Amino acid sequence: MGTRIRIMGGMTREAYDRLAAKIRDVSLLSSASALLGWDQETMMPEKGGDWRAEQLALLARKVHEDFTSDEVGELLAACEEDRELVSDPLSVPAVVLRELRRDFDLERKLPADLVAESASHRSRAQQVWARARKESDFELFRPMLVRSLELAREEARCLGIPEGGEEPWDALADRYEPGMRAAELARLFEPLRSELVELVDRHRGRRKDRLTGRRMPVPAQETLCRRVSEAFGFDFDAGRLDRSTHPFTSGSHPLDVRITTRYREEDVMDALGSTTHEVGHGLYEQGLPPEHAGLPFCRASSTGIHESQSRLWENQVGRSLPFWRWCAPLLTELGGKDFADLSPEELFESTNRAEPSLIRVDADETTYHLHIQIRFELELAMFRGDLDPADLPSAWNERYAADLGVEVPDDARGCLQDIHWSLGAFGYFPTYSLGNLYAACFWKALRGELPDVDEDCARGDFGGILEWLRSRIHRHGARYRPAELCEEVCGTPLDPEVFLDYLRDKHEA
Amino acid sequence: MGTRIRIMGGMTREAYDRLAAKIRDVSLLSSASALLGWDQETMMPEKGGDWRAEQLALLARKVHEDFTSDEVGELLAACEEDRELVSDPLSVPAVVLRELRRDFDLERKLPADLVAESASHRSRAQQVWARARKESDFELFRPMLVRSLELAREEARCLGIPEGGEEPWDALADRYEPGMRAAELARLFEPLRSELVELVDRHRGRRKDRLTGRRMPVPAQETLCRRVSEAFGFDFDAGRLDRSTHPFTSGSHPLDVRITTRYREEDVMDALGSTTHEVGHGLYEQGLPPEHAGLPFCRASSTGIHESQSRLWENQVGRSLPFWRWCAPLLTELGGKDFADLSPEELFESTNRAEPSLIRVDADETTYHLHIQIRFELELAMFRGDLDPADLPSAWNERYAADLGVEVPDDARGCLQDIHWSLGAFGYFPTYSLGNLYAACFWKALRGELPDVDEDCARGDFGGILEWLRSRIHRHGARYRPAELCEEVCGTPLDPEVFLDYLRDKHEA
Repeated sequence: MGTRIRIMGGMTREAYDRLAAKIRDVSLLSSASALLGWDQETMMPEKGGDWRAEQLALLARKVHEDFTSDEVGELLAACEEDRELVSDPLSVPAVVLRELRRDFDLERKLPADLVAESASHRSRAQQVWARARKESDFELFRPMLVRSLELAREEARCLGIPEGGEEPWDALADRYEPGMRAAELARLFEPLRSELVELVDRHRGRRKDRLTGRRMPVPAQETLCRRVSEAFGFDFDAGRLDRSTHPFTSGSHPLDVRITTRYREEDVMDALGSTTHEVGHGLYEQGLPPEHAGLPFCRASSTGIHESQSRLWENQVGRSLPFWRWCAPLLTELGGKDFADLSPEELFESTNRAEPSLIRVDADETTYHLHIQIRFELELAMFRGDLDPADLPSAWNERYAADLGVEVPDDARGCLQDIHWSLGAFGYFPTYSLGNLYAACFWKALRGELPDVDEDCARGDFGGILEWLRSRIHRHGARYRPAELCEEVCGTPLDPEVFLDYLRDKHEA
Repeated sequence: MGTRIRIMGGMTREAYDRLAAKIRDVSLLSSASALLGWDQETMMPEKGGDWRAEQLALLARKVHEDFTSDEVGELLAACEEDRELVSDPLSVPAVVLRELRRDFDLERKLPADLVAESASHRSRAQQVWARARKESDFELFRPMLVRSLELAREEARCLGIPEGGEEPWDALADRYEPGMRAAELARLFEPLRSELVELVDRHRGRRKDRLTGRRMPVPAQETLCRRVSEAFGFDFDAGRLDRSTHPFTSGSHPLDVRITTRYREEDVMDALGSTTHEVGHGLYEQGLPPEHAGLPFCRASSTGIHESQSRLWENQVGRSLPFWRWCAPLLTELGGKDFADLSPEELFESTNRAEPSLIRVDADETTYHLHIQIRFELELAMFRGDLDPADLPSAWNERYAADLGVEVPDDARGCLQDIHWSLGAFGYFPTYSLGNLYAACFWKALRGELPDVDEDCARGDFGGILEWLRSRIHRHGARYRPAELCEEVCGTPLDPEVFLDYLRDKHEA
C-alpha cells in the first residue's frame, strides 16, 4: 500500500491529500460561520446580537488559526514542489495550490494584532457610521474614517505591492479582484465616464416610469419573486429566498445557497430587481462544482465576475423587453387590475431609464458607473494622501454636480451613503463597475451563440442562458483568473465598448 | 497587580478565570452547532443535508477535543483544591465546578473510538428505524436495536455505576437526570401505575372531544400560537417560533431561544398544545441567568425539570378552565363561526379527557405515564438481558393490552413508534414522567402562594406564574439538583400523590 502511494506521486501526493483534508475542515468551519452570519441578518431575534458577535469572533479566530498553521504552510510548500501536481496550471490541484498560496500568504502577512485591531475598529466604525448617516453628521464619522484609512494603509504595507502593481492601494484591490490595479482601472474608466455622461445627457427625461408607485401587497410580491427565481433556474431544494434589510447572497456550499430580498408595497421593482440580482449571485454559487466543495477551486473567479452574474440576470435578462413580455401577465395575475394596463413595452421603458440620482444602490444601469467612478477616485485620493478626509464632503458634492448634474442636499445622501469605508473595504467599489463590463461582454458572447434567446425569454424559458453560463463560467470555479476567463469566454479581453454599445442599443430600442 | 490576585485567592482564582474563559469558548462553539441543528430542522434546503452533517461532525469533534483537553483537566483540578472557591456548594463557582467535573469525567471516560462508533451507528440506526417504522417491519430494525443495546451497555460499563446506583443502566439515566436510579423509579412508578389505571377506568368515555375536526387555516393558527406565546411571556425579541416536523426547543443562549411547532388544519390543539409545551421549555431557557451564559450554571437542573416547565405551561396552565375562559374568544376571533359555539367548559372537557390510545405523543395527561412506564420496564428488561429484543413486539403488545386496554394493530403503532432507542437514548423515557410529577408539585406550591391565579389566567394575565417560576426555578439555573430543587420550591420531596390529586380534581371538575 505504501509502495503504491509512492508510485502515484510519492510523499507529495499524500501531502496534497492531507492538505486538502485540512482545508476542507477549515471550510466547514468558515461555512458554519457564514450560516451564522446569514441567520443574523434574516432570522436572529434582536437580543441575540451580543452572543452572536462572540460566536462569530471565536469562529473567525479558529478559522484563521487553523488556516495559517505551520502544518498547512509545510504541506503547501511540499505540494508546490511536486512538478507533476502543478504541471497543468488549469488542473484542479494546480488551481487549488495557487489559490491557497495566495490566501495563505495574505493571511500570514497580516500580524495578528493588526487583524484584531482592524476587526475591533471595523465593528466600532460601522456603528458610528450608522449613527452619522442617520444624523447626516460627517464630522461624527470623520475620525473613524481617518483611522480606517490608517489601518488600511498599514494592511497594504504588510501585504506589499502585488506583482505588476504600482502603489499600495493595489494590494487591497487585489484581494477582491486578482490582478486589478489602480492605473489600469483609471485607463479603463476615464473614457467610459465621458461616454456615459454624454449618453445620460442625450437620454435623460425621455422615458417615463409608469411602474413605481403601483401597490402590490407583500405576499403577492413574494410569490412573484419566487416564480421569477424558479424560472431563472434557482434551485429551491438547494437554496432559500428570505427577507433582509440589505439584500445579499450567502453561499456555504453549492447545495445550500441563501439569497435575500426586501419588499416595499409601492415599489415592485425594488423587490424584483433585488431578487433577480441576488438570484444571479445565487445561480453562480449553485453552479460551482460541488465535487470540489471545501477547496478553493469551488469558488468564484473574483468579486467582479460574481457581480457580472448578478448584473447579467438583473439587467441583461431581467430588464429586457422579452423578459417583460413573459412577466407582464404575471404582474397582472399577482398584482391585479392595478397592473393590467402596463404593456411589456411600457415596463421595459419604465425600468430602463437614464436619470441621474443621488443614491448608488437606486441608480439605473446607465448612471451606475458614474457613482462608482466618483468613489474610486476619491478613495484613491484619500488613500494616497492627496485628499484630506475633512474635505471629502465638498469633493464629493462637486463631483456629483459635475458628473451627474445633481445637487447633494446632505451628507447622508452624499458621502455617508455607503457602508464600505466604515468596513475598511478599500479597493472594493471598482468591482461593481467591472461586473457591469464583464456582464455586457458575456451577454454579447452568449447572444452570438444562442440566436433564439429573445424568443426563449419571451416564453419564460431561461434554461439556455443558465446552461451556457454554467458550462462557460460557473463550473470552472476559480480555474481562470478574471481576465483569463473573459478571454476564454468571449475570445477578447474586457472591452468597455461592448458595455456602451449595449446601453446605446437599449436607449435607442 | 500580581500581589493583589494572590491575596484574592492566589493561583487558583486565576485558574478559575482561565477555566471559565476556556469553557465559555467551548460553549460558543457548541451553541454555534446548536444553531446549525436548528437550521437543519427548520430552514435548510433539502440538498444541504450532507454538508450540514459534515459541519456538525466537525464541530462535535472540536467541542469534544477542546472540552476534554488536558489543560481543562488541570485547571479544573487546581480549582477544586481551592477551599474558598467551593466552600459554599450553592455558589456559582462551586456549581460550575461540580457540573464541569461531572461532564468532564463522563466525556473522558468514553473512549474516542466508542464515541465515534456510537455516533456512526446512531446515524445508521436512525435511518433504518425510519424505514422500519414506515414499513412497520420490526425485523428490519431488530439488528440495529441489538447493536444499540450493545453499545449502550459498553458506554455504561465505561461510565461505571454512579454513586448510590445499583446497576449499569443507572449510569445512562444519570446523564439526563442526575441522581435518577432504576430501583427508585420502580418504587415511584408502580403505585402510580395502578392508581392511573383505576383513574382511566373510571373516567374513560365520559367526555366528548368537540374541538378536533374543526378547521382553522394555518395562518390563523400561527397568529393564535403567537398570541398565546406572547401572553405566556415568551419574549420574541429573544426568541423565535417556527415550524418543524417534530416540535422542539433549541436554546443557544437565554437571549436567543428558538421553539417550533407544527400545524394541521383540522386539529388546532395539535399546534396549540405543541406550542404551549415548547413555550414552557423556551421560558425556562429565557429565564436562565444570562450573566452566566456559557458556563454550566446557566443551564437546566435536569431533563426532568426541563420537562416539568413544558408540561406545566401545556397542561396545568394551557388546558385549564381559566385558560379557556380567556382563549375561547380568541379561537372565535381567529377561527370564525366554526368555533363560536364552543364554551370554555366544552373546550376544557374536550382537552381534558382520559382515553387510552396507541401513540405516546398524542396521549392525554392521564394516560401518558402508562406509555412511559411500559417503555421504562421493557427497556430495563432488554438492557439487563431479561428480554430478548426479538420478543419486544409481543411484550409491548401484551403490556398495551394489560395497562391501556388497547390492541396494537402493527409495530409502527407499537414498539417502533419512538425514535429514542435508535438514537441510543437509553435512560431517557422516565424523564417525561418525572416532568409530569414535578410539574404537579410545582403547580401546587405556586397555587398556594398565588391565590388569584385562576382569575389572572381568565383575564389573560399569566405574568404572576412566570414571575414565580423565574424566581423559584429559572434564575437558579443548575444550582440545585432536581431533588434539591423540589425540596427548595415545594418544601417536600417529589410526591406522586400530588400529581394524582391534580388529575382527580381535573376529572371531577
